[in-house]
Amino acid sequence: MQKIDDKIRVKRVPKRGIYDKKSIYQILDKEFMCTIAFIHAGIPVIIPTLYGRHENDLYLHGSTASRMMKTLKEGIELSLNVTIVNGLVLARSAFHHSANYESVVLFGKAIWIEDQEEKIQALKYVSDHIIKGRWEEARQPNDKELKATMLLKIPIEEASAKVRTGGPSDDKADYDLDIWAGLIPFKRTIEAPIPDEVLRAGIEVPDSVKNYS
Amino acid sequence: MQKIDDKIRVKRVPKRGIYDKKSIYQILDKEFMCTIAFIHAGIPVIIPTLYGRHENDLYLHGSTASRMMKTLKEGIELSLNVTIVNGLVLARSAFHHSANYESVVLFGKAIWIEDQEEKIQALKYVSDHIIKGRWEEARQPNDKELKATMLLKIPIEEASAKVRTGGPSDDKADYDLDIWAGLIPFKRTIEAPIPDEVLRAGIEVPDSVKNYS
Repeated sequence: MQKIDDKIRVKRVPKRGIYDKKSIYQILDKEFMCTIAFIHAGIPVIIPTLYGRHENDLYLHGSTASRMMKTLKEGIELSLNVTIVNGLVLARSAFHHSANYESVVLFGKAIWIEDQEEKIQALKYVSDHIIKGRWEEARQPNDKELKATMLLKIPIEEASAKVRTGGPSDDKADYDLDIWAGLIPFKRTIEAPIPDEVLRAGIEVPDSVKNYS
Repeated sequence: MQKIDDKIRVKRVPKRGIYDKKSIYQILDKEFMCTIAFIHAGIPVIIPTLYGRHENDLYLHGSTASRMMKTLKEGIELSLNVTIVNGLVLARSAFHHSANYESVVLFGKAIWIEDQEEKIQALKYVSDHIIKGRWEEARQPNDKELKATMLLKIPIEEASAKVRTGGPSDDKADYDLDIWAGLIPFKRTIEAPIPDEVLRAGIEVPDSVKNYS
């Protein structure tokens, strides 16, 4: 169990704060899109980007021309968030309306991966995280592509999760009101895959897509 | 048309950059969860939070005890992001894999709303944005609740959107490969509402929930 320092301690509704790595990994593994904040020219900048998790590290990939990648590779402080919204919580009072969600916030610094083999391994981690098995099916990156791609590793050191589940919680007196209360659950559903318009005839939907969930 | 300054100009894949307000509003209106970045004690902090849009302003609400609200009400620089992921783009090459998404990044400063009537109006904007019609159904905030709630307004001044749609785009030579390529579309679906376990008998599902989309 890591030390919970002031930076990551969940401040609002602290009972919703979670600090164990297993719970944090579970949330990180449900998503592949995060937002990253960093300071550039004195102002906070926020950018959404794809990520992959492997063990206790997150991996980012991007163009070597990307402002975010060029800034983060210097090892400056960053903050990263993953949020999954699971529903709307409708209470009897406007005040107690809420959302059900799972969210991770982490603070850290990126480490620039320069070694060619490590870069390929990191790319595979990102690919496996997003869609398992696709890496093996796709045409592997060539030298030119690898040269144009930057890989960053962010160790998960200072992280916390915040989760809200369940139905509404109203003030005692409000339970007598004639107001409907409950939950509207959301789900992200996967629709049928759409083959590329110019896909060559006879190529079947691969396992990575068939097994995607 | 606003001036596109360097801060908001989409730098990577600039053809995906969108700067007209109508397109930006359309994306903001599809979501209600954003992430906000600000600088606190010298480090970038990122926090997910609910928002509402009315005309050219975004509204945030939160507890007066919230660190984020207390920090933002001082009018410091902030960056805000809304991202909607619409699918995975599977190319023949690992390098050209991508995601379809709609994303808005804005820079600005929050204005603290202190007037009681303006606060109530701002709360209604947030409520209407998240679930139209619910505000009128719910028990309105009392003085104690209003006192515990902080409202912030963020004018949408420096904003840009970035959107990717459509199928994969591969290198010419790769179209001859025997590799499946295409799209896995995602959708956020709304499931059947779940009434509160202790809901009084005879209270029907209200219009706000019936009409929710």
